Amino acid sequence: MKMLFHCDYLEGAHPAIMQKMMQTNMEQTVGYGEDEHCAHAAELIRTACNAPDAAVHFLVGGTQTNFTVIAAALRPFQGVLCAQTGHINVHETGAVEACGHKVLALPDNDGKISGDQVRCACAAHWADETHEHIVQPGMVYISFPTENGTLYTKAELEDLHNACREYDIPLYVDGARMGYGLTAEGNDLTLADFAQLCDAFYIGGTKVGALFGEALVITNDKLKKDFRYMIKQQGGMLAKGRLLGIQFEALFEDGLYFEISRHANAQAYRIRDALLAKGVKMFFASTTNQQFPVLSHAQLEKLGENFSYSPWAHVDADHEAVRFCTSWATMTEYVDLLVEAIANL
Amino acid sequence: MKMLFHCDYLEGAHPAIMQKMMQTNMEQTVGYGEDEHCAHAAELIRTACNAPDAAVHFLVGGTQTNFTVIAAALRPFQGVLCAQTGHINVHETGAVEACGHKVLALPDNDGKISGDQVRCACAAHWADETHEHIVQPGMVYISFPTENGTLYTKAELEDLHNACREYDIPLYVDGARMGYGLTAEGNDLTLADFAQLCDAFYIGGTKVGALFGEALVITNDKLKKDFRYMIKQQGGMLAKGRLLGIQFEALFEDGLYFEISRHANAQAYRIRDALLAKGVKMFFASTTNQQFPVLSHAQLEKLGENFSYSPWAHVDADHEAVRFCTSWATMTEYVDLLVEAIANL
Amino acid sequence: MKMLFHCDYLEGAHPAIMQKMMQTNMEQTVGYGEDEHCAHAAELIRTACNAPDAAVHFLVGGTQTNFTVIAAALRPFQGVLCAQTGHINVHETGAVEACGHKVLALPDNDGKISGDQVRCACAAHWADETHEHIVQPGMVYISFPTENGTLYTKAELEDLHNACREYDIPLYVDGARMGYGLTAEGNDLTLADFAQLCDAFYIGGTKVGALFGEALVITNDKLKKDFRYMIKQQGGMLAKGRLLGIQFEALFEDGLYFEISRHANAQAYRIRDALLAKGVKMFFASTTNQQFPVLSHAQLEKLGENFSYSPWAHVDADHEAVRFCTSWATMTEYVDLLVEAIANL
Amino acid sequence: MKMLFHCDYLEGAHPAIMQKMMQTNMEQTVGYGEDEHCAHAAELIRTACNAPDAAVHFLVGGTQTNFTVIAAALRPFQGVLCAQTGHINVHETGAVEACGHKVLALPDNDGKISGDQVRCACAAHWADETHEHIVQPGMVYISFPTENGTLYTKAELEDLHNACREYDIPLYVDGARMGYGLTAEGNDLTLADFAQLCDAFYIGGTKVGALFGEALVITNDKLKKDFRYMIKQQGGMLAKGRLLGIQFEALFEDGLYFEISRHANAQAYRIRDALLAKGVKMFFASTTNQQFPVLSHAQLEKLGENFSYSPWAHVDADHEAVRFCTSWATMTEYVDLLVEAIANL
Repeated sequence: MKMLFHCDYLEGAHPAIMQKMMQTNMEQTVGYGEDEHCAHAAELIRTACNAPDAAVHFLVGGTQTNFTVIAAALRPFQGVLCAQTGHINVHETGAVEACGHKVLALPDNDGKISGDQVRCACAAHWADETHEHIVQPGMVYISFPTENGTLYTKAELEDLHNACREYDIPLYVDGARMGYGLTAEGNDLTLADFAQLCDAFYIGGTKVGALFGEALVITNDKLKKDFRYMIKQQGGMLAKGRLLGIQFEALFEDGLYFEISRHANAQAYRIRDALLAKGVKMFFASTTNQQFPVLSHAQLEKLGENFSYSPWAHVDADHEAVRFCTSWATMTEYVDLLVEAIANL
Repeated sequence: MKMLFHCDYLEGAHPAIMQKMMQTNMEQTVGYGEDEHCAHAAELIRTACNAPDAAVHFLVGGTQTNFTVIAAALRPFQGVLCAQTGHINVHETGAVEACGHKVLALPDNDGKISGDQVRCACAAHWADETHEHIVQPGMVYISFPTENGTLYTKAELEDLHNACREYDIPLYVDGARMGYGLTAEGNDLTLADFAQLCDAFYIGGTKVGALFGEALVITNDKLKKDFRYMIKQQGGMLAKGRLLGIQFEALFEDGLYFEISRHANAQAYRIRDALLAKGVKMFFASTTNQQFPVLSHAQLEKLGENFSYSPWAHVDADHEAVRFCTSWATMTEYVDLLVEAIANL
Repeated sequence: MKMLFHCDYLEGAHPAIMQKMMQTNMEQTVGYGEDEHCAHAAELIRTACNAPDAAVHFLVGGTQTNFTVIAAALRPFQGVLCAQTGHINVHETGAVEACGHKVLALPDNDGKISGDQVRCACAAHWADETHEHIVQPGMVYISFPTENGTLYTKAELEDLHNACREYDIPLYVDGARMGYGLTAEGNDLTLADFAQLCDAFYIGGTKVGALFGEALVITNDKLKKDFRYMIKQQGGMLAKGRLLGIQFEALFEDGLYFEISRHANAQAYRIRDALLAKGVKMFFASTTNQQFPVLSHAQLEKLGENFSYSPWAHVDADHEAVRFCTSWATMTEYVDLLVEAIANL
Repeated sequence: MKMLFHCDYLEGAHPAIMQKMMQTNMEQTVGYGEDEHCAHAAELIRTACNAPDAAVHFLVGGTQTNFTVIAAALRPFQGVLCAQTGHINVHETGAVEACGHKVLALPDNDGKISGDQVRCACAAHWADETHEHIVQPGMVYISFPTENGTLYTKAELEDLHNACREYDIPLYVDGARMGYGLTAEGNDLTLADFAQLCDAFYIGGTKVGALFGEALVITNDKLKKDFRYMIKQQGGMLAKGRLLGIQFEALFEDGLYFEISRHANAQAYRIRDALLAKGVKMFFASTTNQQFPVLSHAQLEKLGENFSYSPWAHVDADHEAVRFCTSWATMTEYVDLLVEAIANL
C-alpha cells in the first residue's frame, strides 16, 4: 500500500473535530446554519479576524464558495480578474462562466498578480472607446496561498487593495489553504489583515482539518446584503448546517487551525529540504504545504513505488514537475520514509 | 427545553454512520467520489434498485441534486413540469431558474400530478401554433413522498412513465424522503420500480439517517453521459467524496435505511392516531413521517409550550395547518409525551 | 386573398418612416446608436416624457427589451412580479428564466395587477421565516395596454408606484402597444406620467408604425448605470443603430406616433361597435386596438373566409374567443368590409 | 466633413434592398419569419450553398447569432474553442459567458487557428485525469474572414473539419464579412464548401449590403432541432421577420451579394497598394476589405484631417497599427482622395 502525498484532502477530519461531531450528534438544532454552533463559530472567526462587523457564512466546498461570492458581487456584464493559473480559471469546470461571468485571466508571476496588473487591465478597459463591447472588470480574485504554493506579502496585498479601491471593485481571496499560508515561513499576513484589506475571503476547512467546509468572511456591506439567498440558490446551504459550525468551533476554539497548519508546513519543509539537498530543482518557490520538484522519469518511477504524487507540468523530454502535498494529517513516519527515499535517489 | 418536531433534519447521523465515519477517518483515499467506499455504496444501491447498469452519483444536498439533474437534462428553451407545490417551485430560491429553466407548475392533487396532466400540458404545447414562443415541456419532476407527505401508487407512476415516454421527455423523482415513502403503510412501490419507471431519481440521505448526502440513480443513458462534469460545475463534488460513500454503505449494507424509515413512520402514525382520536382534522392525507393537523390557536399555544412544529397554511380565523415531523432519530419517549399532550388538549 | 386582422405587425413601416430611411440611407454615421439621429430621437422622447434626465436607449424588439431590463435590474435570487397573463410569463420562451430569474405570476384582473397584490406578495415573502428559500420579489412588470387590451388608470399606476416604493423595488412597464393605450378612449395617463411613476418603460415602435424598434426610457439612476453593456451583451445593440433613431425621429417629430395610434383605435372601435350591435359578447373589456369577441364556430367560419383573426381562448363547445387587431396600417376599406361582414352574420 | 473609413457599417442598405423594402412595404404577411419572403430567401441560400437540406434562419445581428448558435450547441459544462482574437472572446461583452459557457481561447496565427490546435486542445483535455474539473471543448468557432482580415484556405478548413469530426464536436463559422472573404483574391472557398465542411455558419448581411441581418445556415441535423425556440428566447426573432427575408432575397437573387463584395475588396486593394507603394508596413496580411497599416503618429495626424480610421494596436513609441475599411458602399471618389493623400504622406 502506497503512502499518499498527491493532495491534501486524503483523510477525514482532525480527531478533535470527529470527537465534537460525536458529542453533538444527537443534539436537536434548527437547520440551515441558524443554530448556536454556527453562531458561536462565526463569533470565533470574527474575533480571529478582528472584524466584529464581518458577516460569516459557512459553505460546503471551495468551488461553491467561489462562484457564490462572484455571482453575488458582479453585474451581468462584469468579469473577474484573476491569474491565468487561478483555480476558477482552470479547475472548476467553468463554474464562474456557468453563473454568466467571464474570467479575465492575467499572466501570473509565481501564481500571483499585482496591483499594477489590475490597474493596467482596468485602465485599458475604460480607455477603450468600445468598452461597452468588452467585459468590464468587476472584481479581483486571488488565492492565498496561490496554486503554486506561493504567498502574497502584506505590501503586495495592500497594493492590490489600493488598486481595487482606485477602480471601485471588490477584492476576494480564495483561502482554500489559508492555514498553510498564514503559518508559512516568511509570511507577514494575518487574518486581521485579510479582513481589513479584502471585501471577502474564505478560510478553508476542507484542506485544513475539517471533513468539509469553508468559512466565508464578508466585510463589504454591499456584499453582505441578502447573501443567504445566494447560498441557498447555489446549493451551498447545508440542511444540517450545524455540522459546519461544529467543525469551525473545533478549529478556532483553541488555535487548532494554526497548530495543524504549522505541522503540515513543517513536514513539507522536510520534504523540500531533502529534495534541495539532493540538488533537485523546485518548479515553484512554494513556502507552503505543496512542493513542486522537477524530477527525472527514473526518479519518479522510483519514488512512485511507495509514494503517490500529482503530475503538474511537463518540463523536458526527461523531466516532469510534480506535486507532493502534506496536510494536517500527514504522519511524520511517512515523511521520514519519503525523505529517506529521496536521499536514496 | 422543547422537544423538536418541526422538521426531519434536527440531529446528526445515525450512530452506525458515525461509527463508520470514525473507523475510516484516517484512511487515505483518492478524492471526488472515485474511492472504494463510493464504488461499494454505488454497487449496493444498484443492487437495491435491481439496476445493474444504473449510474449512481453521490451529491451533498437535495436542492443541488435537483438543479444539477434538471440543468443536465434540459435544452435551454425547455422547462420542467411539476406540481405547483413542488419543492423546486417554491422552496429552492429559484435555483432551477438560475440554471436558465422555467418551472412549469401544474395544479396538484394532494401534492401529486397525473400522467394525464402531463399529456395535457404537452399536447397543448405542441398544438399551439405559437409554440416556439412558449417554454417547451422538457421533463417531469415529482417527489416521493410529495411535499404533502402523500405517495404515488405504482399505477400512478406507471402512468406518468407512459406519459413521459409518449412525449419523449424524462421523468425525475426527488426522493429526499424516499425511505419514509418506501416503508409507508399502503405503499406499493420499490426502488426497483423507480429504477424501471424513471430516468433518474435520488434516494435521500440527509433526512433519512445521514449527516448529509443524496444518492442519485440515473438509468437513462443520455443523462449518464459526462454527468460528473455537471456535479463539479454546480458545486456538488465533495473533495472528500468518500464521506458520502461511507454513509450510504452504512445505510445500504444491512437494510438500515429501511429499518430507520419504518421507525419514523411508526412514530408519525402514533402522533396521527392521537390527533384523529381527538377528532383533529388532517390537512393532507399523509401516510408518511410528516403529519399536517389543523389545530386551533389555543391548541397550538398549548402544544407549543413543549413541542416545536412548522407553520404550514392558514385555514381560518381560528385555525392553522401545521406540520409535525418524525425521523430516524425521533425518540419514542418524546412521542409518548407528545401523544399525551395531544390527548390532554 | 384574405384581409389580415390577426395581429398588429403585418405590414412594414409608416410611409414617413420609409421616406426618412431612404433620405438618410447613404449618410455615413458612427455605429451602435451613438449617432446624431439617435441623440435627436432620444431628445424628442425626453421632451415627450417631460423627463430631461431620463436615459433613452433604442432596442430592436420587445422580448429583448424586457429581458435586458429585467436582467439589469435584478440580483440573482430575485424574481419579477407580473400578471399570469403577462407576456414575459407566457410568450417569450422563458427568456427571463434564461437570464436566471423566476417570473412570479399573480392572478390578473382583466390583464391587470394591483398595488395591493404587490404589497401582499412582498409582505408574504418577508413574513415567511424561510424567505431565504424563496425567490425574492425584486421588481414589478406590467404592460400598458395589457395583453387583454385593457388599461391601467392613473390612480392604479400611482398605487403600483407607491407599492413599489414601499418595498423599494422598481416598476417597469412593457409598452409594446403604448401608442394605442395613450390614445384610447377613457385613458388618463400620459408619457410624462409613466416617466414620473415608473423606473423604466418602453415606447413600442414595432407595433406602432416602425419597421422594428422600441424606445426604452429609464428614469431610475441605478438602472441607468452601464446599461449599454447590457444591451450589447444581450444582442440588442444594432450595428447601424441610427436605423432606430431615424424611425423614432419620424414618429416623434410631429406627433405621428399619436396620430397613427388614434387611427388604429378608431378602426378597432368600429369593429367592436359592429360586434356589440350584433349582440356579440366581448371576452375582455379592451378599449384599444385589440378586440376579443366571443363567436360561434359558424360565425368564425363565415368571417374566416375573408378575414384573418387569432384564436385566443376556448369558451364552450360552440364558442371561441378570438382576437381582431388593427394598427397604424389598417385600411379603412378593409374595416368597412369587416363591419359589413359582421352585420351580415 | 470627414470621409469615414473606420468601419464597414457606416451607411444604410444597398439601393436594391431599399427599393425592395419600399415595394413590399404595405404587403400583409405573417410574422416571425414564417412568410414567403423568408421562405424564398432561404431557398436562394440553400441553392447558393448547394445544401438542399440545410436549415436557414435569419437573425438580426452577429453577436446574437453567435451566442444563439453556441448556446444551442453546447451542454452546460462545454466551452467553445476559438482564436484569442476571436470576436466572441474580445468584443461581445461576454455574451457567450452570459449563456453559461467558457470561451477557450487559443493563440492565433494571423487570426486563424488550425486543426492541430483543436486536436491538441481536445487531446490534452481528455488525457487529463482531472478532466471533469476542466471545461470540456464542445465546439470550434472561427471567423471567415478573421478579425485580421485573413482567410482560411480550403485545406485549412478541411483540416479543421476533420479535427472536429475526430472529436465529435461541431465546427461553426462566423461569416459577418463572408462576402468579402468569398470574393477576395486568393480565396479558394465557396459557400458550398462551408455547407459541406461546417455544422453551421452565417452569411453576414449587416456588413455586406443589408440594413441588418445575418443568414444562419445549419447543416447538422442535431443542431437544427427546435432552433426557432432558441432564436425567440434569445431575442433574435424579429416580429416583422420578412424584413430579413426581403433583404436576403435582394442580395441572393442575382448575385448582388458577391458583386458588391468584390467592389469593396477592389477599393481595399487600391488603399493597400497605395500604402505599400509608400513603403508602409501592413500589420496583418489581410486580403479583404479591412486593411491594417502601421503608420507614424505624424502620418496618422495628416490622414486624420480628412479620413476616419480605427485604432487597432500600439506598435512602438512612434507607430500605431490602424484599420481602414471599405464596404459595398464605399465611393470610388473617396478612395481616390484617400489614395492621393497616402501618396502625399
